[in-house]
Amino acid sequence: MNHNTIHFNAETSFDGVLERSFTLGDITGVLFSPESGPVLGAPLLLSGHSGGMHKRAPGLVASAQHLVTTRGYTVAAIDAPGHGDRPRNARDREWVEALHAARAAGESMDQIITDYNTSLAERAVPEWQATIDALQALPDIGADVPIGYGGTTLGVVIGLMLATAEPRIAAAAFGPVLAFDAVIEAARQLTIPVEFTISWDDSEIGRQPGLRLFDACASVDKALHVYPGRHQQMSAFMADNHARFFDNHLGWAGVPAI
Amino acid sequence: MNHNTIHFNAETSFDGVLERSFTLGDITGVLFSPESGPVLGAPLLLSGHSGGMHKRAPGLVASAQHLVTTRGYTVAAIDAPGHGDRPRNARDREWVEALHAARAAGESMDQIITDYNTSLAERAVPEWQATIDALQALPDIGADVPIGYGGTTLGVVIGLMLATAEPRIAAAAFGPVLAFDAVIEAARQLTIPVEFTISWDDSEIGRQPGLRLFDACASVDKALHVYPGRHQQMSAFMADNHARFFDNHLGWAGVPAI
Repeated sequence: MNHNTIHFNAETSFDGVLERSFTLGDITGVLFSPESGPVLGAPLLLSGHSGGMHKRAPGLVASAQHLVTTRGYTVAAIDAPGHGDRPRNARDREWVEALHAARAAGESMDQIITDYNTSLAERAVPEWQATIDALQALPDIGADVPIGYGGTTLGVVIGLMLATAEPRIAAAAFGPVLAFDAVIEAARQLTIPVEFTISWDDSEIGRQPGLRLFDACASVDKALHVYPGRHQQMSAFMADNHARFFDNHLGWAGVPAI
Repeated sequence: MNHNTIHFNAETSFDGVLERSFTLGDITGVLFSPESGPVLGAPLLLSGHSGGMHKRAPGLVASAQHLVTTRGYTVAAIDAPGHGDRPRNARDREWVEALHAARAAGESMDQIITDYNTSLAERAVPEWQATIDALQALPDIGADVPIGYGGTTLGVVIGLMLATAEPRIAAAAFGPVLAFDAVIEAARQLTIPVEFTISWDDSEIGRQPGLRLFDACASVDKALHVYPGRHQQMSAFMADNHARFFDNHLGWAGVPAI
């Protein structure tokens, strides 16, 4: 297998969205586009799933469907190391077991999440860079389309590290995340347009990390959107605001694709 | 003069917007609409100016122009008691002098603002209610159009008191405000859809009042938008998000008026 080339190995079509599963070496991913394929010139949005989830997490798929069907975006998601269709190594299994044990005992998971997510992000950043290279090599995407990144929890940690290392990321939208030191430090280096969206009543992460992260972020063009509720359940209105953030910062007119 | 009827006494037209000055008894106001007059069925937005400003404050006019020209809204603004074209009574003059003296001495203005704004809001609420009655009696507005309210500082205090007293207000958008007890108490009674927009680096009001106000607000459908910067300077993108909030909650398709 050529590790530099994307291999599409399955495709499904649902409600106007073509989902193509792919591999790139060890990486497993999925590419969402209109049924007829990517729209010429449409921006590419990279979508980072939450910790413990995978490239087809329900919220991720719902967001991708909205972005594809209302705006004609191309959306790519890959499994983080040891997530989804990817085998988990011994060290990662230890972290996951420690998380389960801490949760069952009612103890803080913060230090375990910090160590585990930092390790995952260190591995995921070069994987995303290889994925961008390979997607840009596809004739129906190309090297000239603007690229944005969106993610929640683990997907924020990875996205922050990716966006500070990778100049091809032009704008980013982040959900809630545990704001450990490496996350805050990455935000201090971030200068691209960014929006943060947090749940005010988030029982797991709380309010303060989102406020600290917004405060630390060096971007001149930044916004923080706060909604009530415990879960990050996106209404259609919120999803549309999210799409408009990318329209605005990636220079896309948001044409309906279907 | 009939105190229940609006008297239009001057009109100007600029960039596609018709501005008609009016009086209603002692109240002085202005009505913004497309040049051809209000769009049939367009929502009515009530706009509350900041303390010390008036019905034609630059930010208020810019917002009204955006709402009229991009969405066809009808926008009404009235001078608060003792503001703009309205004479200031002896008690109000004392408060204004006390504000100036406190500012010059570098002392806190919070208690003076609390007392002054509470008094102004008590007078302004029945004035807005009379204005709504009179605007609904106009044949080109009518009693059936949905009504929203937007304001900053003093305009937030008045809007919160108005929205808790007046069931005709269906949605509200509030900027920064000093969150004194009566403001927090009004927010606790508020149940209509509401969005709060604050400046993260606001040197006069700071961050905490906006967070406290959002937290206190009883509305299930609420959002807080935080932007960097010291002043509440609305970008076109922010202005458009603002308009879409009203579109969404007042059931308006946002048709271009001109």
